[in-house]
Amino acid sequence: MPRVSDIPSRLCLGPGPSPVPPRVLAALAHPTVGHLDPAFLALMDEIRDGLRRVFATTNPMTLAMSGTGSAGMETVIVNLVEPGDRVLVGVNGVFGGRLAEVARRAGAAVTTVDAPWGRALDRDQLADAIARHAPHVVAVVHAETSTGVGNPVDGLAELIHAHDGLFILDCVTSLAGMAVEIDAWGVDAAYSGTQKCLSCPPGLSPVTLSPRAVARLDRRRLKVPSWYLDLTLLRSYWGQERAYHHTAPINMLYALHEALAIVLEEGLAARFARHRAAHERLAAAVADLGLPFVSQDGHRLPMLNAIAAPAGADEAALRRRLLDEHGIEIGGGLGDFKGKAWRIGLMGHGATSAAVDAVTGALRVLLC
Amino acid sequence: MPRVSDIPSRLCLGPGPSPVPPRVLAALAHPTVGHLDPAFLALMDEIRDGLRRVFATTNPMTLAMSGTGSAGMETVIVNLVEPGDRVLVGVNGVFGGRLAEVARRAGAAVTTVDAPWGRALDRDQLADAIARHAPHVVAVVHAETSTGVGNPVDGLAELIHAHDGLFILDCVTSLAGMAVEIDAWGVDAAYSGTQKCLSCPPGLSPVTLSPRAVARLDRRRLKVPSWYLDLTLLRSYWGQERAYHHTAPINMLYALHEALAIVLEEGLAARFARHRAAHERLAAAVADLGLPFVSQDGHRLPMLNAIAAPAGADEAALRRRLLDEHGIEIGGGLGDFKGKAWRIGLMGHGATSAAVDAVTGALRVLLC
Repeated sequence: MPRVSDIPSRLCLGPGPSPVPPRVLAALAHPTVGHLDPAFLALMDEIRDGLRRVFATTNPMTLAMSGTGSAGMETVIVNLVEPGDRVLVGVNGVFGGRLAEVARRAGAAVTTVDAPWGRALDRDQLADAIARHAPHVVAVVHAETSTGVGNPVDGLAELIHAHDGLFILDCVTSLAGMAVEIDAWGVDAAYSGTQKCLSCPPGLSPVTLSPRAVARLDRRRLKVPSWYLDLTLLRSYWGQERAYHHTAPINMLYALHEALAIVLEEGLAARFARHRAAHERLAAAVADLGLPFVSQDGHRLPMLNAIAAPAGADEAALRRRLLDEHGIEIGGGLGDFKGKAWRIGLMGHGATSAAVDAVTGALRVLLC
Repeated sequence: MPRVSDIPSRLCLGPGPSPVPPRVLAALAHPTVGHLDPAFLALMDEIRDGLRRVFATTNPMTLAMSGTGSAGMETVIVNLVEPGDRVLVGVNGVFGGRLAEVARRAGAAVTTVDAPWGRALDRDQLADAIARHAPHVVAVVHAETSTGVGNPVDGLAELIHAHDGLFILDCVTSLAGMAVEIDAWGVDAAYSGTQKCLSCPPGLSPVTLSPRAVARLDRRRLKVPSWYLDLTLLRSYWGQERAYHHTAPINMLYALHEALAIVLEEGLAARFARHRAAHERLAAAVADLGLPFVSQDGHRLPMLNAIAAPAGADEAALRRRLLDEHGIEIGGGLGDFKGKAWRIGLMGHGATSAAVDAVTGALRVLLC
């Protein structure tokens, strides 16, 4: 068998994974200890504290699920939705669509508020739909990775809570790259992934639930359908009881601990400003290259830049040359944007002027 | 925050995680690339081939789920069971009980065949129950980690298949430490964990499905309730289409690739013999210490040795001293064995005479 060490280094500027700092890789490789080892349990407490800080929450129920961001999505849905519940989902890309699909599989009566690919959800349409349906749960993707669009969240919680609903926010791509204010925004459940702006390898999903969401969980009529993702069981392991549920992914949690330490050393405000600055530098450079954004002006994400692929070119072949000749990964389009858009991620450790210059310089060589 | 590098080294001789070889830790820390990177996709093909070899199967649908062993358990259940299906589960420990619970949550009508903790399931009782219930699915734990007992599997497939049922085998603790013959035994679905005899960190679950199980999957009336664990979607990523499902846990898959390479370099027969020899050395030493096995003679697992905790002693305090003073982790008892048994794991890289001598030497110091 070939060796892992033969896998070439890449500059990861796609939709994730993002570049992982050497400190995080070193933590990942620290010798494995047991999931009930006192030294490891202390680390879990610190991870929980660090996650609360990046989520800007005091939620006691804050933890890292043992799966990727999609497992986090499924966790909040299967724990907070029961068969027959009315669930309203904003859909303007792959991940809104996925939320709706996961909710349907949980037995929900799903209504969607849609916007075209590349445009933000309309806040008034969301408000109308909330008033009309009085949903048990409203789920919105904060940063739509498939389109590079940020969706409005301000003021939604009041409308949702007025009908005793819960507000779920997908923070997979936004967390640690732009403002995420779980408590201030009245979000009841949020989840993220480690491989975006946290600059940790993929494999864990930070999740936080408000006390209001925990009360809903405690009032369930039926058991959570997924045993693996059941927060009523997991909280006993992450809580003081330390009851064994499943064997935690020890080394991935080492990596998350180090990634959180780096985020907090930099400071969230400085980190958000760095993401913003990298985005602006990229925006100027791709304008020079004649590659317009396909995401709506005023709603563009700093960490995920969706631009038009060069007209008339074989975009997949160009991305392959960018990878093979320059060692740089960018993402292709999904869904409506397949074959038409490129997605340049400037996430976490990759949100630097050096990364922007590397990718735009390489594109200039390939295109001009 | 304290650093991960401050976590002390431990000799992991509990029920898992097992000791991880330096080569596997080095692979884990290799720089992250994208989940659609051609170099990574080639690695996935090799992982699939390696898993087929350790499972002793030619099953096309063989892959690693992005979660721990319990996620693998849930995967085979939610993909192969539909609401109302009759599921027969052998229960003689925590993991048989967990299988029954996961099947109930999937809507199955569950019947159990039980044996007392520390005893193997009775093959005749299983056969009678299969004849009586004609179950759609029969699930048995090959190596019960909670009791150190191996269950009979020979000849079950014929009985199960005679009623058009599927045979699920939990190989979490057995795989790569004792004979596991998926094809020869007629097993239709099996799952494992990486942190036992594969000596890889926890976080992935190898899964394999026979063509018969895949046919059942293809005939489902309802969608798989879990989107994250839906094999009808995942096979498009692990197959030639490479359709994006979720972001694979890249670095964990690096580690699994290296762990499989080590297993295949040693050879399965040699590896099983090494586990057996370590077990026999331990058995002699604990007999000297006056700590009898609590698992049934003739059914003891080589890699998981369940022995009586010292009578009259505070067993948890002794295990804590073993950890603090000697840097060795062993497991306590679960369920019926809580406070009464110790579980000494000799798994993968930990199945050596040096490890046996270390733990028995330390126990001698603490007890004598």
